[in-house]
Amino acid sequence: MSNNKPTRPKGTRDFAPAEVSKRQYMLDKIRQVFTKFGFQPLETPAMENLSVLTGKYGDEGDKLLYKILNSGDYLAHLKHDLASYTSQTLTPEIAEKGLRYDLTVPFARYVVMNRHELTLPFRRYQIQPVWRADRPQKGRYREFVQCDADVIGTDSLLCEAEIIMMLNEIMTALGIEGYEIALNSRKLLAGLSQYLGHPDKEGPLCVAIDKLDKIGQAKVHDELRQQGFDEQALTRLTPVLDIQGSNHDKLQALGKLLTNEKAQTGLREVEEVMQITENMGGDLQHVSFDPALARGLSYYTGIIFEVRLLDGSMGSISGGGRYDNLTGVFGWPDVSGVGISLGIDRIYDVMQNRGLFPATSSQTTQVMLVNFGEENLAYVLPLLGQLRQAGIRTVLYPDNAKMKKQLSWANKNDIPLVLIAGSDEVNNRTVSLKNMKTGEQQIIPVDDVVTTIKQVS
Amino acid sequence: MSNNKPTRPKGTRDFAPAEVSKRQYMLDKIRQVFTKFGFQPLETPAMENLSVLTGKYGDEGDKLLYKILNSGDYLAHLKHDLASYTSQTLTPEIAEKGLRYDLTVPFARYVVMNRHELTLPFRRYQIQPVWRADRPQKGRYREFVQCDADVIGTDSLLCEAEIIMMLNEIMTALGIEGYEIALNSRKLLAGLSQYLGHPDKEGPLCVAIDKLDKIGQAKVHDELRQQGFDEQALTRLTPVLDIQGSNHDKLQALGKLLTNEKAQTGLREVEEVMQITENMGGDLQHVSFDPALARGLSYYTGIIFEVRLLDGSMGSISGGGRYDNLTGVFGWPDVSGVGISLGIDRIYDVMQNRGLFPATSSQTTQVMLVNFGEENLAYVLPLLGQLRQAGIRTVLYPDNAKMKKQLSWANKNDIPLVLIAGSDEVNNRTVSLKNMKTGEQQIIPVDDVVTTIKQVS
Repeated sequence: MSNNKPTRPKGTRDFAPAEVSKRQYMLDKIRQVFTKFGFQPLETPAMENLSVLTGKYGDEGDKLLYKILNSGDYLAHLKHDLASYTSQTLTPEIAEKGLRYDLTVPFARYVVMNRHELTLPFRRYQIQPVWRADRPQKGRYREFVQCDADVIGTDSLLCEAEIIMMLNEIMTALGIEGYEIALNSRKLLAGLSQYLGHPDKEGPLCVAIDKLDKIGQAKVHDELRQQGFDEQALTRLTPVLDIQGSNHDKLQALGKLLTNEKAQTGLREVEEVMQITENMGGDLQHVSFDPALARGLSYYTGIIFEVRLLDGSMGSISGGGRYDNLTGVFGWPDVSGVGISLGIDRIYDVMQNRGLFPATSSQTTQVMLVNFGEENLAYVLPLLGQLRQAGIRTVLYPDNAKMKKQLSWANKNDIPLVLIAGSDEVNNRTVSLKNMKTGEQQIIPVDDVVTTIKQVS
Repeated sequence: MSNNKPTRPKGTRDFAPAEVSKRQYMLDKIRQVFTKFGFQPLETPAMENLSVLTGKYGDEGDKLLYKILNSGDYLAHLKHDLASYTSQTLTPEIAEKGLRYDLTVPFARYVVMNRHELTLPFRRYQIQPVWRADRPQKGRYREFVQCDADVIGTDSLLCEAEIIMMLNEIMTALGIEGYEIALNSRKLLAGLSQYLGHPDKEGPLCVAIDKLDKIGQAKVHDELRQQGFDEQALTRLTPVLDIQGSNHDKLQALGKLLTNEKAQTGLREVEEVMQITENMGGDLQHVSFDPALARGLSYYTGIIFEVRLLDGSMGSISGGGRYDNLTGVFGWPDVSGVGISLGIDRIYDVMQNRGLFPATSSQTTQVMLVNFGEENLAYVLPLLGQLRQAGIRTVLYPDNAKMKKQLSWANKNDIPLVLIAGSDEVNNRTVSLKNMKTGEQQIIPVDDVVTTIKQVS
C-alpha cells in the first residue's frame, strides 16, 4: 500500500462530515442575515481568463495566481524556439486561464459584462473558494472560502449604516460576544495627512498606522521617518493616535484639532453613519470610532470598518469599506460601492474554541436501528420507513454485525438514539430505545416509536 | 471600453441571483433527503495531485484533466534541455496539480487517507464543482456541479433498496413527475453474456446495449457483430431485449431463459431489492426492471440504476450502481459500495421548463421602502429596522431618486411589496402598501406594518 499511497496538495483541506455541517450552519446563518438586508447571491466560475486577473493584485499577487496549462499540444503554437523561453516568458504563451484569487475582481468583471441588464444599485453577496499559491502556514491555506457582501451604484451613507447593523446581526446570529466594530474614514486620514504637512503621503501614512496594534507607536514613527515624515509631523500625530474617550468625545476632540475640509468631511461622515444606525434602531454599543484604523488596501476612499475580538485572540474577523472605482480597470469608471468581507476560517475557529456550534446539526443522523439479520428485518424495515416518513434522519445498520460493533458505529457517528428490536421486543410488539449519551434504555410500544422519538430529539 | 472589455472562459457560467437561489432551493431539497437517509456531507479540495488523478479516467479522461502550472521558476529544475521537450513530456515536469475531474476519485483518496479513523460503513454525499477540458456545447460545460451519494463498506442489498426510496423522495421533493427508475444487475448481464456464448465479452455487450435507446436494435447488432458475436448469439439476444410486461413477468420469463448461476443471482438480487423496498413501505410504481440497462462504466459489478423522464425530453437525470473496488487503485482492495450521481444541470432544466421553482425563494427580498430623502428618513428608518427585526427581508432604496425609478428597480428585482410613506402618510402616521404584482395599493397604520406584511407575504 505504501508505494501508491495517495496524498493531498499542501495547503488544502478535506472537510469531514462534522466540519462541513458546522461550516454550513455558520454560512446559513450569515446568508440569512445577508438576505434580510436585501443582498442577493452571485456565483462566478473558479476559472477566469488571466487577462482578467493579471495586474489587479500587484506584482506579488500576480506571482500567487494559480495558472492553468492550456489543453492539447500547447507548445505547438509558440512564437519562438522553445529553448529561448524562461518560465516568465513561457507562462503567458501556455496558460490563458487561472483560478480566482478573490471575489472582487470576478464581481467587477461580472458587473461590466452585465452592465446593460443590471439595474443599479446592486447588492450582492458571494461565498465561494479562492486560490492563492501562498506559502502554507498555520491558518493560511492555498484554497479557502471568501464571504463578501457589497452594494454598488450608490454613495448613500445608508449603506454604511446597514453594514454596521448587518455585522451586529451576524455576530448575534453566530453567538459571538465580546467584539468591536472599529470605524474610521479614509477622508479623515487624508485630512490627517494634510494636517501633518504631508498631503501627498496618505498612502504611506495608512500603511504605517495600520500596523500600530502589531508594532507599537515607536516603530510606526520609525517607518514614517523613513517615508520622509519630519519630527514635527510625528509630534502632531501622537495625540491623534493616543486619543481616548467615548465616540462622541473623540469626534469632538478631533473636530477641533483637524480643521481642514477633508478631515471635517470624514468626521461628519463617521458621525452621520452612527446617527443613521441609531435611527434604524441599531445598537452602537459595539461600534468604536478609531482614527488609527487604516486598512492596508489603497482601494478604499470613504468609511472603513473592521471587526475585532476584544480578547485579542486573533486578528480582525471582518473588514471592508467604501471604494469609488470598482470597475475602472475594465473601462467603466466611477462605480462606487461599499462592502465587507468575513474571515470564514477565523470565525469558524472562534466558534469552535468557544463552543458555539450546536451539539447536533440539521444534518446529524438522529436514530440508528440495530440490524439482527434477515428474519428481524420484516419487523424493522417498516419502522425505518415510518421514521423517515416523519422526517427523522434515520439509518438501519446495513449488516447483521455484532451488537457491540453496531453500537460503537452509532457512537462514532454521534448518533444520539438507537432502537433495538430483538426477539423479546418483536414478540411483545415493542422496541427498546437507547439514549447513547446517558446510556438509559426504555421499552416503548412499536406504534409509539415515531411520537416518542419526536419528543426526545 | 471596448479595448479592455473583460471576458469569461468558454464553457463556464456566471449564476445571477435568481439562478443561484433556484439552484440552492434544489440542492437544499436534495440535501434534506440525503441526510434523512443518513448520508453525511464531505468536501474535498478543488486541486488534487496529478498523481492521484492521472490514469483513473482512461486516456481520453487524462487529456480532459485541467493541469495547474507549478508556481515560481518552474523551468529551473527540468531534467533535460528545454528544447528537447514536447507538450506531452513537459507537462509532468511543470504541473504537479490538477483540478478535480469527478467526485469519486477524490472520495476514494479521502477514504484511503483516513482509513484508520473511518468506521465503515461510511455514507457520504458530496455536492461540488468538477472541471473537464471538454469541447463546450449545449448543456455541456467545463465547470459543473456533481452531486453524489455513496455507502461504502457493506454489500448489503438494503443499501440498493434505500437508494430507490431516496430517488423517489428526491423526485417528490422537487415536484418532478413522470419518471421511471430503471433497475438491472451487472450479474444478470454477465449471465446474459454467458448465455449468448461469449462469457468473456460482458464489457463490449454492456457498451453496445447501453446505446439501445439511441441507435436501435439493428445497430446494436451491427456493433456486436464487430465485437465478434455470432448470429446465433444475436438471435438469442433479441427476445431478452424485446421483453415486455410487469416487473414480475419479466423476472419470471428471464428466470426460465437464463438458467446459468450468474444470471440467476442477478435476477434474485433485483427481486430482493424490490422486496426490501416494499417492506420499508416504499413505492415500486416508478421502478422498472430493464434487462437492457447497462450503464457505460466498467466500474459497476452489481445492481445498476438510472432515472429517466417518461416524456423522453432528455437523457437520464441520475445513474449509479454497486461497485466492488472503490479504492483498489490506491492499494486498498475490496472496498464495496453503492452510489448514485444526480445530474444537477439537467434536473435544473426540467424544473425550469416545468415551472417547478417557487415564484419567490427564501432569498428574494420581500419589501422595498421608497426613499423620499433626508427629512423622510426619520419616519422610514425605524420601520426598516422593525421589519428586519421581524425577519422580513427588506431594503430601503438608498437614494432619493424619482419614484418611478425606485418602483422600476423593485420590479426588476422581483420584490413583491413596496412601502410608500410620503408627507400625507407621515402626517397620518400611515404607510401605503403597494402590491407590485396586482398594482393594488392600501393604506395601513404605521404600527400595523409588520403584522400586515407578515400576513400577505
